[in-house]
Amino acid sequence: MPKLRVHMLAMSLDGYAAGPNQSLENPLGERGDELHEFFLQTKRFGGPGGPEADERSVAAGEENIGATIMGRNMFGPVRGEWGDSDWKGWWGEEPPYHHPVFVLTHHAHDPIEAIGTTFHFVNDGIESALEQAFAAAGGQDVRLGGGPGVIRQYVQAGLVDELNLIVVPILFGAGEKLLEPIGEAVHAFDVAEVVSSPSQVTHLKLVRP
Amino acid sequence: MPKLRVHMLAMSLDGYAAGPNQSLENPLGERGDELHEFFLQTKRFGGPGGPEADERSVAAGEENIGATIMGRNMFGPVRGEWGDSDWKGWWGEEPPYHHPVFVLTHHAHDPIEAIGTTFHFVNDGIESALEQAFAAAGGQDVRLGGGPGVIRQYVQAGLVDELNLIVVPILFGAGEKLLEPIGEAVHAFDVAEVVSSPSQVTHLKLVRP
Repeated sequence: MPKLRVHMLAMSLDGYAAGPNQSLENPLGERGDELHEFFLQTKRFGGPGGPEADERSVAAGEENIGATIMGRNMFGPVRGEWGDSDWKGWWGEEPPYHHPVFVLTHHAHDPIEAIGTTFHFVNDGIESALEQAFAAAGGQDVRLGGGPGVIRQYVQAGLVDELNLIVVPILFGAGEKLLEPIGEAVHAFDVAEVVSSPSQVTHLKLVRP
Repeated sequence: MPKLRVHMLAMSLDGYAAGPNQSLENPLGERGDELHEFFLQTKRFGGPGGPEADERSVAAGEENIGATIMGRNMFGPVRGEWGDSDWKGWWGEEPPYHHPVFVLTHHAHDPIEAIGTTFHFVNDGIESALEQAFAAAGGQDVRLGGGPGVIRQYVQAGLVDELNLIVVPILFGAGEKLLEPIGEAVHAFDVAEVVSSPSQVTHLKLVRP
């Protein structure tokens, strides 16, 4: 059975997916960038090369993925009605996906064609987006992008099969909690793999048994 | 300067120091015992021997310690007034401390002498207990035992110098939060050391700069 998988979801030691005072200019909040320092070192992200555990974690997120689902904020900064916005995503002419992408939104929007990737806009709920994504993925898995709020919705609905989480040893003290608002739903996962990287982050694979 | 140090403080991946439904019979709540499985393997705790990282972490908690502070629940199950209780602690005739122990309580109690250890009862606040403990420690550090509520009080008061924390890769989904109620106070710590054990727990040393 194809799976719904989350990859490269980072949280601080005290459980935050973003620091305090998030804004459009600072979507991960104060110090939020520190959550991603380790993967900016990887070759995959244009860095000089990170420890193998980190390279593998990044690469795993692209294996056997036939479609992606993301929240609207991950697609772009436009809020509310789309109006005559000609925003086509953050990624330029050739987005890195090379498969269909389903964007969750409350407001209808025609599909957007880019090189290798078509963005479809889904305004009838997360289950509908998931059905469409599985259909488009042709038997491969579906990757669930961010943001954390979208991931929490899918986890709470019991729809996420695999949650690849990265714990970064920094302390925020405030910000957007990653797991806590999910509460008991997170209890449904088993910790299947724990890999500690020399970069000091810990890669965890949580699976729904 | 002597320090106030916390050791062997374990939390789940989702930040709980105890599972849901804590009770006198089950002080760490449901599944709470899983937080301590790794150290029950160590020689120090009578186990067959754990990975070196775990043995070292346990041993570090006993180095250069001249006095201990603990909450009343860590001393025993008696609640409210002591009345004619003859409770002398969980540890029998020779407690493992071999130095003065200061028990925080709202209710006065005469000191209790055991082999190598005297238990003093402090009912005028956490600062008073700390002063008395430093005086008794004769230049060595003071160790702050549990429970988590007592540790949070000292952290929030800015009195903890070193917090040795262990992250255990299990998910509770509910229970007693370790760091979150401390909020911004935890922000005052730097993560000075991260040691990943083959037992899959991560040992972290947080220090106040």
